[in-house]
Amino acid sequence: MSSLLRLKQQELNNISIAIDAMGGDKAPKITIRGANLAAKYTKGKVKFLLFGDEAKLKPLLEKCNYLKDCHELIHTPDKITSDDKPSAAMRNRNSSMALAINAVKDKAAIAAISAGNTGALMAISTLALRTLEGISRPALGSVLPSQLKPVVMLDLGANLNSTAQNLYEFAVMGDAFAKVLLGYPKPTIGLLNIGTEEIKGGDEIKAAAELIKANPHLTYKQFVEGNQISQGIVDVVVADGFSGNVALKTAEGTAKLISGFIRKEFKRSFFMKIAALLAYNSMRRLKRKMDPRYYNGAMMLGLNGIVVKSHGGTDKVGFAHAVATAILLANRDINSAIKQELVK
Amino acid sequence: MSSLLRLKQQELNNISIAIDAMGGDKAPKITIRGANLAAKYTKGKVKFLLFGDEAKLKPLLEKCNYLKDCHELIHTPDKITSDDKPSAAMRNRNSSMALAINAVKDKAAIAAISAGNTGALMAISTLALRTLEGISRPALGSVLPSQLKPVVMLDLGANLNSTAQNLYEFAVMGDAFAKVLLGYPKPTIGLLNIGTEEIKGGDEIKAAAELIKANPHLTYKQFVEGNQISQGIVDVVVADGFSGNVALKTAEGTAKLISGFIRKEFKRSFFMKIAALLAYNSMRRLKRKMDPRYYNGAMMLGLNGIVVKSHGGTDKVGFAHAVATAILLANRDINSAIKQELVK
Repeated sequence: MSSLLRLKQQELNNISIAIDAMGGDKAPKITIRGANLAAKYTKGKVKFLLFGDEAKLKPLLEKCNYLKDCHELIHTPDKITSDDKPSAAMRNRNSSMALAINAVKDKAAIAAISAGNTGALMAISTLALRTLEGISRPALGSVLPSQLKPVVMLDLGANLNSTAQNLYEFAVMGDAFAKVLLGYPKPTIGLLNIGTEEIKGGDEIKAAAELIKANPHLTYKQFVEGNQISQGIVDVVVADGFSGNVALKTAEGTAKLISGFIRKEFKRSFFMKIAALLAYNSMRRLKRKMDPRYYNGAMMLGLNGIVVKSHGGTDKVGFAHAVATAILLANRDINSAIKQELVK
Repeated sequence: MSSLLRLKQQELNNISIAIDAMGGDKAPKITIRGANLAAKYTKGKVKFLLFGDEAKLKPLLEKCNYLKDCHELIHTPDKITSDDKPSAAMRNRNSSMALAINAVKDKAAIAAISAGNTGALMAISTLALRTLEGISRPALGSVLPSQLKPVVMLDLGANLNSTAQNLYEFAVMGDAFAKVLLGYPKPTIGLLNIGTEEIKGGDEIKAAAELIKANPHLTYKQFVEGNQISQGIVDVVVADGFSGNVALKTAEGTAKLISGFIRKEFKRSFFMKIAALLAYNSMRRLKRKMDPRYYNGAMMLGLNGIVVKSHGGTDKVGFAHAVATAILLANRDINSAIKQELVK
């Protein structure tokens, strides 16, 4: 079930969330429309704090009926662009991104969502919210499709290198993420490696396996190879940020390669056009199953506050899913779940 | 064009190649049948040295007409299994794998092909053949499908970590591989990274980009992200062995996830069965385009001799492609091409 549909079933009361309305390739149009779609599912019970340029947001808001009575516009002319270096972005304290994250810090909002520059979001969030006690580095975690059921993968690129301790902490956070967001009671955990045998991989990954095994809250299963992510043989795939990012993007690229080929073939001949008509529902199901919009929303795990990163190029449906993911994670208190699993 | 078809156009004279007949999940059945299929395309001009257990190979050879007059069976009862550690495998000097590689060392064969244990093959090959002058570490390189045309990727898992110098040498070897095997006159080169901007990634990868740019034989293009591999925006993707392996296997896994879904959908209803009939040719084209068998055969680049690794679970068509790839690489002298591009 998608985050938006899960959201419908939640008890929501007096919640405020912060939206960086200016972040992303098609902001603020997509962010406002996405927030409006999320507001439809929350039925006015969630207040949307919209950070951005008033002159640009006001005309867009006029067409957004669901947001009408449940938003507050906080004007700021400053924004972070996709080219800004994280170090420069951190110095701009009046950007829509920084103000949205500050709202989480000040407890004015239970979560912040941004489709902007990932490096800047990571830097600003870490500076403002600090890492949870027992977590040395934050990680980017998200949900991916698999043959069996959705799987959680992290880190998707917040870090370049990871020590055994980092990987272990990612496992704790991924475990809590799978329990809270997907409702898996006892998620199985795997470490992304270049072979499944225990002798494979470097020292850090082998030591990480031992640390995970030693934590009674966690269910360590095995090393997993790239092709096993989509087989769903574990519920949580733990990776260093570099190879996790490569795996995520390679999966996206391969899915696009195949879907592009199918689209082309379906237009190729008269017979294929008929086949396309007959296969319409099936292809829609396939699209639905693989659609990155329904998996949109990666959490900056490990901070004192919830920050969700939306894909920069998504549309309103994708952005609404990121918003829904943030609300679900906050409402079900992911950070308490993480703290409980950190064995001292 | 696949390696087998390219093979047909080659001038082949008095060539011998060495086959580890006992390596792979379905050896020796698949290796012998695969060699027989390759023999069909080489029309008796290539001699196949088959290393393995005579008692097992003889009955299989009786059914292999194309191999009949162009093979030599070299009996050895020893073989390397998939569970053998590389260090143990190296000590067995009478394994079919070691003897096949020794045939290359002794110039009795121009190349060796094995579908056996990758770690063992790498260790035995490196010990027997040693690295080329100017190459500090061998790398595993292969061809992958993309939207535009096939691309070369390396290292696919021979190494765990890579320095800037290693990555640079991989670029030289990948460039020669693309020129020799695919006939690309001036392959463009990209480094696999977590972002395309020049500030992205660690120090080693940034330094590698500078080294590649400084070599006049190479055409450096940019950092590439995982999703850009299958877009074909560069001809050669250079990666450290860990993330290269993850990318390769993740792409395979995603392709399987989607094709499994399509297969299931095509059996779902009466309409879908008709759609499947109408779409038969298209789906065959898709399968053909993505079929890992036609890309089978990864070279252990950087050694004084040609060793090609076949996927362990492939069938005779896949194994024949690995054999054809080895013959093409040897016949067109990939190692001289590499040496020419290594600027002192």
